[in-house]
Amino acid sequence: MFLVGIDKLIEIKKNKNKENGMKKLFWLSQIIILSLVLSGVVSAADGKVYRWKLAETWGPNFPIFGEATKSMAKMVEEMSGGRLLIRIDSANRHKSPLGIFDFVKTGRYQMGHSASYYWKGKNFNSLFFTTVPFGMTTPEQYAWFYYGGGMELMEKVYSPYGILSFPGGNTGNQMGGWFKKEINSVEDLKGLKMRIPGFAGEVLAKLGAKPTNIPSGELYTALERNTIDALEWVGPSLDLRMGFHKVAPYFYTGWHEPAAELQFMVNEKAYNKLPKDLQKILTVAMKAAAYDMYAQSYHESGKNLATLAKDYPNVKMRSFPESVMTAIKDTNAALLKEFAAKDPMTAEILKSQSEYQAKVRAWTNLSDRTYLDTSDKR
Amino acid sequence: MFLVGIDKLIEIKKNKNKENGMKKLFWLSQIIILSLVLSGVVSAADGKVYRWKLAETWGPNFPIFGEATKSMAKMVEEMSGGRLLIRIDSANRHKSPLGIFDFVKTGRYQMGHSASYYWKGKNFNSLFFTTVPFGMTTPEQYAWFYYGGGMELMEKVYSPYGILSFPGGNTGNQMGGWFKKEINSVEDLKGLKMRIPGFAGEVLAKLGAKPTNIPSGELYTALERNTIDALEWVGPSLDLRMGFHKVAPYFYTGWHEPAAELQFMVNEKAYNKLPKDLQKILTVAMKAAAYDMYAQSYHESGKNLATLAKDYPNVKMRSFPESVMTAIKDTNAALLKEFAAKDPMTAEILKSQSEYQAKVRAWTNLSDRTYLDTSDKR
Repeated sequence: MFLVGIDKLIEIKKNKNKENGMKKLFWLSQIIILSLVLSGVVSAADGKVYRWKLAETWGPNFPIFGEATKSMAKMVEEMSGGRLLIRIDSANRHKSPLGIFDFVKTGRYQMGHSASYYWKGKNFNSLFFTTVPFGMTTPEQYAWFYYGGGMELMEKVYSPYGILSFPGGNTGNQMGGWFKKEINSVEDLKGLKMRIPGFAGEVLAKLGAKPTNIPSGELYTALERNTIDALEWVGPSLDLRMGFHKVAPYFYTGWHEPAAELQFMVNEKAYNKLPKDLQKILTVAMKAAAYDMYAQSYHESGKNLATLAKDYPNVKMRSFPESVMTAIKDTNAALLKEFAAKDPMTAEILKSQSEYQAKVRAWTNLSDRTYLDTSDKR
Repeated sequence: MFLVGIDKLIEIKKNKNKENGMKKLFWLSQIIILSLVLSGVVSAADGKVYRWKLAETWGPNFPIFGEATKSMAKMVEEMSGGRLLIRIDSANRHKSPLGIFDFVKTGRYQMGHSASYYWKGKNFNSLFFTTVPFGMTTPEQYAWFYYGGGMELMEKVYSPYGILSFPGGNTGNQMGGWFKKEINSVEDLKGLKMRIPGFAGEVLAKLGAKPTNIPSGELYTALERNTIDALEWVGPSLDLRMGFHKVAPYFYTGWHEPAAELQFMVNEKAYNKLPKDLQKILTVAMKAAAYDMYAQSYHESGKNLATLAKDYPNVKMRSFPESVMTAIKDTNAALLKEFAAKDPMTAEILKSQSEYQAKVRAWTNLSDRTYLDTSDKR
């Protein structure tokens, strides 16, 4: 259409009746410009730059998690040819690591990066979109999110707040944590002061432990000074830099966060103001950055685990004994049942997850698990 | 800049010296248009539509694999606001399922969707970018591709052909195949006529089997009429529709394709002609579509496995006995060693893969595998 306009301009230029031609020319140029605007060709690339801000729970230069937000913003900038620019504010700037939900809800930030289970005080059901104790592994959970109804349930939970919620990167299976003493029986959990947030904390509390939450900057000191006896953080990918291994040598395998998925949040009104192409660019970039973070977490875990084995021979790898695992698992199941009875939405989510997990776990068992068992003895 | 132009037009319209004004107006409108073009604002969205074609190995409406290409093309169209349109030609149209490499190399098609190991006749080293027997699982392999040097090695192998190669979607762990009779010992492999392509076929041949390749449309008949005694295809996600279970009731777990990754190929020259934003849109869309395909494969596998358990009680799930697994594994290792000795590039790829696998497998064992073993007894 644009080229047709040029042709007509040239043709008219040759018109001998100059004044008349010039008049036509003027209106024609107006029409061309107007149609360009209306057609959306110019509105999509009129130099209109959308400047957004994203608030993240993490501190500046936080490895892996912080790389996911930077990578997402970079993809968006490059794919949009600079038409959507996202500035990232880390916790040192906005001073409110757990204020992300409100930032996005109110529109103070168009976007946030955090974890859904931090909002259980706002809406208890947000808890189930990060991971649940004894829940799905990461590939199982991505299948649930994108093909098993997970995204639709998450939308139901978040839409009342005008927030769009998306997977924001997976840590993979998280370790059970660093312990000063070995756990040999359920007895050993009684009175145990442990930093462990979320649903897992409630499970341990039922078994007599004293779960607590402590800001990440104070964790090492708390452990060193026996304010706590144990803590869970993430796993080899992020724990070594924290130094926990120096004061709590027992490193337990995981049960409570088998597939912790971080979260991108987008203010719905801000999203709706974007042109369609930028909306798509944003959602695809978030999706790719989230998947990538899982691959990166896997990579860093393998790498750091090798370092740990080589440079930290004092670390003792353990799994909880069967009696402890059974007690935790049963307590978890009973607690979930309690919550499901209280709220139909909780019941709907848990039903979807448990039915899906049963089905997809049969595949995990037949495929990767059997493959490892038959080809890689240990 | 565009709005400034409009303002000036309006200002000039008010000029009382009409003819002079009109002349100015004409040149001004020319200048505006020219500067829009020069500034690249319009050139990025001047209605210039890149029309590309993608040739895929698969037939029309092929589930999962064919959905990955459609989803990629749709993301590209939407993110580019229609500036990059990719037409997908399935095998019924281009008539050459295994001609994709040449289509892309020659530029007859700008893109292809296939699997790297199909090109082992062109370059033996292409074999290692799909999956290898006893190799990495899917999360391990994605970590290797994107963070462990895999992409760089793939580029080394493909760049001499002017082809850019990208992951194209993972099937997850593939099943060992459908067998008419049980395999109880290495003896039972001798003389076994089996459709099994790629490196795994060479491994079985060393153990006395008769591997063969047969087009997918003829597989069922070949199995029914005893032309072959066994075959491998994919797994529950795609096998049930083929009907193999009706004539070969033993369904064996996998060893030979623990993480089969399909492949997007792009003609390098065509890629270089795209504006930067479209290049990025294309690569991100391919990446997201590939990851998505893994999630979809996982979903379909879980779903179809449940159907199989419910509706096909005659199917007998088996794993090869330890003696057979050991023989296959040792033969595989010896064969890989042979090939590595022949070609430094093969040696480089295999070293990268085996070192990476050892490291990342330690993490798989400590995380998901231990999690399943301690929380989900079977």
